[in-house]
Amino acid sequence: MGAGVGAAICDRLDRLGALTEEPGRLTRTFLSPAQRKADDLVLSWMRDAGMVARLDAVGNVVGRYEGCRPGLPALMIGSHLDTVRDAGRYDGMLGVVTAISCIETLDRAGHRLPFALEIVGFADEEGVRFGATMLGSRAVAGTFDSGLLMHPDRDGVTMAEALHGFGLEAARVGEAARRPEEILAYVELHIEQGPVLEQIGLPAGCVTSISGATRFVVDVTGEAGHAGTVPMGCRRDALAAAAECIAAIETRCSAEDGLVGTVGQLEVAPGAINVIPGHARFSIDIRAPDDAQRQRCADDVQSLAAAICERRRVAIETRKIHDLPAAPCAPWLMDQIDTAIAAQGITPFRLPSGAGHDGMAMIALCDIGMIFVRCAGGISHNPAEAITQQDAEIGARVLLNFIRDFKPRTTA
Amino acid sequence: MGAGVGAAICDRLDRLGALTEEPGRLTRTFLSPAQRKADDLVLSWMRDAGMVARLDAVGNVVGRYEGCRPGLPALMIGSHLDTVRDAGRYDGMLGVVTAISCIETLDRAGHRLPFALEIVGFADEEGVRFGATMLGSRAVAGTFDSGLLMHPDRDGVTMAEALHGFGLEAARVGEAARRPEEILAYVELHIEQGPVLEQIGLPAGCVTSISGATRFVVDVTGEAGHAGTVPMGCRRDALAAAAECIAAIETRCSAEDGLVGTVGQLEVAPGAINVIPGHARFSIDIRAPDDAQRQRCADDVQSLAAAICERRRVAIETRKIHDLPAAPCAPWLMDQIDTAIAAQGITPFRLPSGAGHDGMAMIALCDIGMIFVRCAGGISHNPAEAITQQDAEIGARVLLNFIRDFKPRTTA
Repeated sequence: MGAGVGAAICDRLDRLGALTEEPGRLTRTFLSPAQRKADDLVLSWMRDAGMVARLDAVGNVVGRYEGCRPGLPALMIGSHLDTVRDAGRYDGMLGVVTAISCIETLDRAGHRLPFALEIVGFADEEGVRFGATMLGSRAVAGTFDSGLLMHPDRDGVTMAEALHGFGLEAARVGEAARRPEEILAYVELHIEQGPVLEQIGLPAGCVTSISGATRFVVDVTGEAGHAGTVPMGCRRDALAAAAECIAAIETRCSAEDGLVGTVGQLEVAPGAINVIPGHARFSIDIRAPDDAQRQRCADDVQSLAAAICERRRVAIETRKIHDLPAAPCAPWLMDQIDTAIAAQGITPFRLPSGAGHDGMAMIALCDIGMIFVRCAGGISHNPAEAITQQDAEIGARVLLNFIRDFKPRTTA
Repeated sequence: MGAGVGAAICDRLDRLGALTEEPGRLTRTFLSPAQRKADDLVLSWMRDAGMVARLDAVGNVVGRYEGCRPGLPALMIGSHLDTVRDAGRYDGMLGVVTAISCIETLDRAGHRLPFALEIVGFADEEGVRFGATMLGSRAVAGTFDSGLLMHPDRDGVTMAEALHGFGLEAARVGEAARRPEEILAYVELHIEQGPVLEQIGLPAGCVTSISGATRFVVDVTGEAGHAGTVPMGCRRDALAAAAECIAAIETRCSAEDGLVGTVGQLEVAPGAINVIPGHARFSIDIRAPDDAQRQRCADDVQSLAAAICERRRVAIETRKIHDLPAAPCAPWLMDQIDTAIAAQGITPFRLPSGAGHDGMAMIALCDIGMIFVRCAGGISHNPAEAITQQDAEIGARVLLNFIRDFKPRTTA
């Protein structure tokens, strides 16, 4: 792997980052013309790196680099090529571009391995266009929900129509699914999207689990009243109750490593400066790398909020609107990732992923592993998203090391 | 005073409550055609009760009942005839209608007192049309701000134009001002607009002070981040900080009688379920019957919020947007109101008024006193506002007693 690999990766990310459907900012959604341009560019890079490359039935870019003989099962490495609105240039793309650079290195050295390699650039992970996420990886994992095909985007174009406009056929999306015996594992390199690696001063780390998430919407109903005339002891203030719930959620979620809890939305009614709030609605998002841990926390948070509201004589209604299990990374893959990190002279470090990734879908097909690369300030989903060329190079070297030394799981 | 006085008062309130500028709900703003109709009705009731009645230069209805000889200084009794949007029928109107029924009783008995009585129905207290409140009582007190005459309503009609359309002249508004030597005191009967009298089981009470109010807008700025990827210990969550401030405000304001504090508005940005809030803005409304008490509380609340935000490493900016001193009721008037209440066999009870009233303007002219009448559930500024006929009668008897036994302040 050449010394300029970090610069070369970043150069490609700049080129991909210029392919957008919105002038002046990076937005590239599922089956858009901008995605077509990105696909063509990635296909050309794959072919230049010695791969046989194609679009699959849902629009994923898939490149294959055969092993020491054709048709061997493949280690699949990938990430996604779509973006959020007003995105950065690293989320998703870094994993695809880095993997291609690894194949390029193998190919130039004429290096063939005792397994095939497949690089995938998923067509949809963020779910911006149709609301449903991980459409590309769900199709590969064989868990694509065909009920979504009739789902319209905000312009009223259904997913089936969008596929047709892209030159694909809704009826054939199922053909993107892979058989378990074809795939040895799925491994993804991705920016951390959080501040942990930066704070401890490491360029890369091994993911233990993609956290599951439980989300609630909570309605607290007290009694509106005149801010001047109702004594404090007579109030049933919905916002004061919500504020106490928020503090309790923060305290509970701070009590265990890996667990996080966020109240990101809060609305107050009637919302006048001189009126005691009669109603407050807020969201709760709880994530944990371990499902039992998340469930315990979700139960506790509900009990705490109910007790607070009972004491304050306000009504509370809690609705669970989302409940996605964690996707634990396979220990045998984590061990090999740690070894690849250590081979670069970096202390192996494990951390959960609080953000969702394609591995959550791929785990239905095969074991998964993830490598995180440090990013600036933990900032993501934002044009200010950044990594250094040096960290891009370290990430590529870790991934190449992992690939070269990869040992398929021994079914004992 | 006849046995049916409560029913008669409520009947008049129903008739006044039907005079509205919005079909299907009661809204009657300054200088509106609905106000003209209400004025005509109140003028006719005043004249029937033996008063000489007129509109003054700002549109207040003023009725005069001479004392045992013409031209004596007057005890002024009143309230306002305008309403909020979608109002109840008691806020303001009860005080005017009750006072007229007292004069009626005196007149029918041929009873003249050693002072004159003036009943005033202020044309604007709520400030709905032009934003500025207590325009009627400010004009009488001589503190009307003529700069407001050029102020437009939401249809672009200036106050000067609205006065002209009502048959009044902007240049002559100053003529509504009374001289201090003409007015012995200003006393107002009003529904409580809060739950205190109902909760302690008393139909009427004596107001100690119309609370002053201090209002702040607080901006808390932390750092937005991914709800999944930023560990709890690394967060600078603006909403969590605001929630802790809200709890501290509630605790501080609950620590002293009479004091109230309300956070009625709270907005969160970016306001997504999966994003840690980077910014929160909330309002604080602090009221107290005593100015020093309110000032101490406002200082404490600012210090507490600043300390919370410093500990949480979030920025806080607090802007004071309103600061109105309390209007204390005169002890000599409170004593006479207590006596009038006790004369009805009711335990005298004193309470502050957290809501604003015309007394806040009238105190610039003369000493003020207030009688509160119990209202259902403390509900006000709402069509559900209600009092019983029995309480209306008790209020009238208390006010009549107060008037009959009124002794002007002796300047010792």
